[in-house]
Amino acid sequence: MRRLTELGFSNVHIERFEMPVWVRGEERAEIVSPFPQRLVVTALGNSGATPAAGIEAEVIGFDSVAALEAATDASVRGKIVFITHNMQANQDGSGYGPFGAARRRGPTVASRKGAVGIVVRSIGTDHHRNPHTGVQVFGEGVRPIPAGALAIPDAEQLQRILGRGRPVRMRLTLTPRNIGRRQSGNVVAEVPGTDPSAGVILIGGHLDSWDLGTGAVDNAAGVAITTAAAHRILRAGPPRRTIRLVLFGAEEMGGFGGTAHFNANRAAAQVVLVAESDFGADRVWRVNFNLGPGNAALAARVTDLLAPLGIVRGRDQANAGADLGGWTRIGIAVIDLNQDGTRYFDYHHTPDDTLDKVDPVQLRQNVAAWTAFLAVVADAPEAIERAPPTPSQ
Amino acid sequence: MRRLTELGFSNVHIERFEMPVWVRGEERAEIVSPFPQRLVVTALGNSGATPAAGIEAEVIGFDSVAALEAATDASVRGKIVFITHNMQANQDGSGYGPFGAARRRGPTVASRKGAVGIVVRSIGTDHHRNPHTGVQVFGEGVRPIPAGALAIPDAEQLQRILGRGRPVRMRLTLTPRNIGRRQSGNVVAEVPGTDPSAGVILIGGHLDSWDLGTGAVDNAAGVAITTAAAHRILRAGPPRRTIRLVLFGAEEMGGFGGTAHFNANRAAAQVVLVAESDFGADRVWRVNFNLGPGNAALAARVTDLLAPLGIVRGRDQANAGADLGGWTRIGIAVIDLNQDGTRYFDYHHTPDDTLDKVDPVQLRQNVAAWTAFLAVVADAPEAIERAPPTPSQ
Repeated sequence: MRRLTELGFSNVHIERFEMPVWVRGEERAEIVSPFPQRLVVTALGNSGATPAAGIEAEVIGFDSVAALEAATDASVRGKIVFITHNMQANQDGSGYGPFGAARRRGPTVASRKGAVGIVVRSIGTDHHRNPHTGVQVFGEGVRPIPAGALAIPDAEQLQRILGRGRPVRMRLTLTPRNIGRRQSGNVVAEVPGTDPSAGVILIGGHLDSWDLGTGAVDNAAGVAITTAAAHRILRAGPPRRTIRLVLFGAEEMGGFGGTAHFNANRAAAQVVLVAESDFGADRVWRVNFNLGPGNAALAARVTDLLAPLGIVRGRDQANAGADLGGWTRIGIAVIDLNQDGTRYFDYHHTPDDTLDKVDPVQLRQNVAAWTAFLAVVADAPEAIERAPPTPSQ
Repeated sequence: MRRLTELGFSNVHIERFEMPVWVRGEERAEIVSPFPQRLVVTALGNSGATPAAGIEAEVIGFDSVAALEAATDASVRGKIVFITHNMQANQDGSGYGPFGAARRRGPTVASRKGAVGIVVRSIGTDHHRNPHTGVQVFGEGVRPIPAGALAIPDAEQLQRILGRGRPVRMRLTLTPRNIGRRQSGNVVAEVPGTDPSAGVILIGGHLDSWDLGTGAVDNAAGVAITTAAAHRILRAGPPRRTIRLVLFGAEEMGGFGGTAHFNANRAAAQVVLVAESDFGADRVWRVNFNLGPGNAALAARVTDLLAPLGIVRGRDQANAGADLGGWTRIGIAVIDLNQDGTRYFDYHHTPDDTLDKVDPVQLRQNVAAWTAFLAVVADAPEAIERAPPTPSQ
């Protein structure tokens, strides 16, 4: 708030909300037999806890959640489930959805089948001893079991040992706790527009990050990019439309800040277009739109202005992300400035999410792209229409 | 021993020796002020210990050991020294010598000046939250102080904070212990030659590895390469010269196995040529020689046979490594098959030294190069002469 006020933003304030809080405890995994060795593990969000001394059980391995679902309950009961996958690095980040199912759904499926715990191959594309955490939510009525992610070299080691076809025993210690409800908040700031009837452009990123790293990439970068671009518009003189910058709290554990902002503001906010930056700091390579039928010329102007920055127009329906997706699902127009995700999942949710991963040259290209985009949409003389609602994620 | 015997090697045995043993304890570092945060640290070999609760002191930063040496004792006394450096990845690994001085000599210099502890930027070329350990030896009469290596992103973070020019306080907890002398050993195996008067070719790698990783790169790779190549010679029929394969123990803490082997065998061993594999598993790109003046034709034959594998002849004086350097310093001939070190110091002495870092294609090229080299030198009809002694490292 102090920094945004110093920078000259208006209406700087905090929106408070409450959320359940889960905190990490001890984290250890080891192969007990046939080849005793430590494995690098971290708990997934909302993981259940083992006793302090851990649990020991035989490991049963699967190549996918689908393979786990196809297994008999009897084969899984009393065991520690291991799920691997073959996620590869894609520029558009498209591996995260399908391969991330091991993390998102694996624990629920494993618990339903009577597993005493689960470890998944980290949802990532690196080969370092840094596990990737991330949220998962046990299904309604499902008993929380200890759920962890192995660093990828450790997952490959476990897979090699399981591949011998003989029993493998693991000791797993994860002692996270739920400590009840706590207060978090979103930080809001505005660049006031000259025409209140023209609606509000809502942009933002999230302030929270996973505890293992520092959150430079996910998502200090998005906070910096959107703040810097809005600040450039502010310095250039008042735009037609108000730009509302929201720096969200508590995205990682389930989009609590985004949901709180949407619920508190949906009726009165006059939002006509949203855009979110939450995919690191590498260059914007593509722009996607979801606009009303009368805004084709607006999309063309944005596209033309971004082309000199090396940005192409994509064919996907834009849909914002976790913090602004609520708006797009009710038909608010949205523009996505897609960032290059080739190395994003090397660092995502790991201890390796640190400032050295942010390339200043690519960061500047992001700010340039966002500034150009904001200049066009905030000053557009035409109305920004409603768009087709996006599907639920 | 069992595996080497199964493979058909002769005279398989263990050479036992004793060594002092230092064991890792708790390891934690944090910036206390101005920006409290945890840093990833690991103890350097032979580090002194802090109390269990750690020590807290102001940090004083230096760009090199030379800069530390130039500082007044008064400016260092009672502080935690931090030394950074700018090691870059080179194909020939040449950054390790000069930049490694921060680790090798920094703790001794810092202790002499009254520092209460030292942390160095890890001697490595990656940007991951994995610190690089490694041995250092306190000089004669120097009080051991706690000595650690920060992961490179953490060292950069500390450097950024120090760069503000205001006091930085750190808490450092390192609780390693010296547990006295213990037995270790070298594993020896031979491919017997047909001509005892022609001398012995001595090759090898080391079996021990740093505790943070699994040692796949440093130096299971060297053990595998030299064993596989010797085994190919064995299967091809007896060579003229005996090939002695030594898999050394306790290289990392100071070449104890290599020294023990040299001292026990130097008088009677009839060694005429040595070669060592201790630089990972990436491809051999260069061959260097240190041979007597009458062995120019031998060098030419080795060079010609390695060329189809993409290997060039270098101009450096070959010198083997930590385990066989004793032999070269007394004038035993040596050939170095230099491996590509571009990514070696990304993993060296870190938790990241795991099997996924070994590229099977490049590993095979190593075995091919070693097999060709061994075939030439073991069967060479000419005498293998004494060579110019190599300098002490």
